[in-house]
Amino acid sequence: MDFATLIEQRASANQFDAAREVADATLTELLRLATLAPSAFNAQNRRFVVARSQEAKQRLLRHANGQDKVVHAAATVIVVGRLAPHATLAAALQPSVEAGLVSADLQATFVHYATEMYGDQPQIQRDEAIRSASLSAMTLMLAAEGAGLASCPMIGFDAAGVHREFGLGDDEIAVMLVAIGHAAAGNWPQKPRLPLTEVLAWQ
Amino acid sequence: MDFATLIEQRASANQFDAAREVADATLTELLRLATLAPSAFNAQNRRFVVARSQEAKQRLLRHANGQDKVVHAAATVIVVGRLAPHATLAAALQPSVEAGLVSADLQATFVHYATEMYGDQPQIQRDEAIRSASLSAMTLMLAAEGAGLASCPMIGFDAAGVHREFGLGDDEIAVMLVAIGHAAAGNWPQKPRLPLTEVLAWQ
Repeated sequence: MDFATLIEQRASANQFDAAREVADATLTELLRLATLAPSAFNAQNRRFVVARSQEAKQRLLRHANGQDKVVHAAATVIVVGRLAPHATLAAALQPSVEAGLVSADLQATFVHYATEMYGDQPQIQRDEAIRSASLSAMTLMLAAEGAGLASCPMIGFDAAGVHREFGLGDDEIAVMLVAIGHAAAGNWPQKPRLPLTEVLAWQ
Repeated sequence: MDFATLIEQRASANQFDAAREVADATLTELLRLATLAPSAFNAQNRRFVVARSQEAKQRLLRHANGQDKVVHAAATVIVVGRLAPHATLAAALQPSVEAGLVSADLQATFVHYATEMYGDQPQIQRDEAIRSASLSAMTLMLAAEGAGLASCPMIGFDAAGVHREFGLGDDEIAVMLVAIGHAAAGNWPQKPRLPLTEVLAWQ
């Protein structure tokens, strides 16, 4: 299958087959692929909390407006965005320095610019956390599709409740949930989009 | 190539080959695929302004901190997020109603819930605009990779300047730029990421 077909056939699943397992190794591989999404300065200002056990999924359900797909899915991933990306940028770039791709000087320069851009700018930090987490969430959903699994992005949850329940840090926000599992019967196909002429302008 | 390999080989390109063209039809197809990314309620609260002509790319460059990849790329897409998704949701769902996938009653119910969620909530509207635009931007970058093209996501630009220069609406924000074209020599490979153990937690 070519990649265009994969994008075309991905649809947000509401019905998951709770009886069909997904191996931890498969989920780990999908999440590894999600980390390969880009982020500004390669700051990687996001992480993934996986509601995997029945107990964790039930806790998540209590903050997810009763949407039981978070329980029926093999796992529901809380995609977490991190504020203050400049504060952890040096560490995030350290593997690039060690690989010889980025010099220590360039690492310091990136930290300087990132601090100028984000320091004392809570709205810009929040924007970046959402952007970075969303880029990885989309990669996760397409990776799942590529592995023959269904997914569902969810924003209908109590962010404060999830934050508390899953122990997120002060500098973290729950950006979205992504349920992953085997699809059951009864899902919608991908819904049609607006005509391209309405969303595309050339200059 | 399997899709995992495609995700692994995508890297943000800084060097584009300005001499190699990309057909309008190719860009249009990539942007069509980008519209297939999910959005809350299928609100499709985003659109794409393509800086395609030399003149438009030069105008964009003036607001992009001198990053000349916006000019060397075949096109640089301004990925625009739209606020107040509830206001345009009925229209966004109309193709789903006409396809018989969503009843008029369900369309009205979605509009009701979306109005509850977003109405008079400027921060939540902004969050959603960034999330929705970012999901489509990631799909666009992977679609480009799948078509043998390089891309670069960019957040280092003057959002107010781009807004004014490209005539965005009051309810719109420029979420990110995505430069697309043929890669030239001299690009970094994908930079390494933090170890999975640092960004992945199971519950």
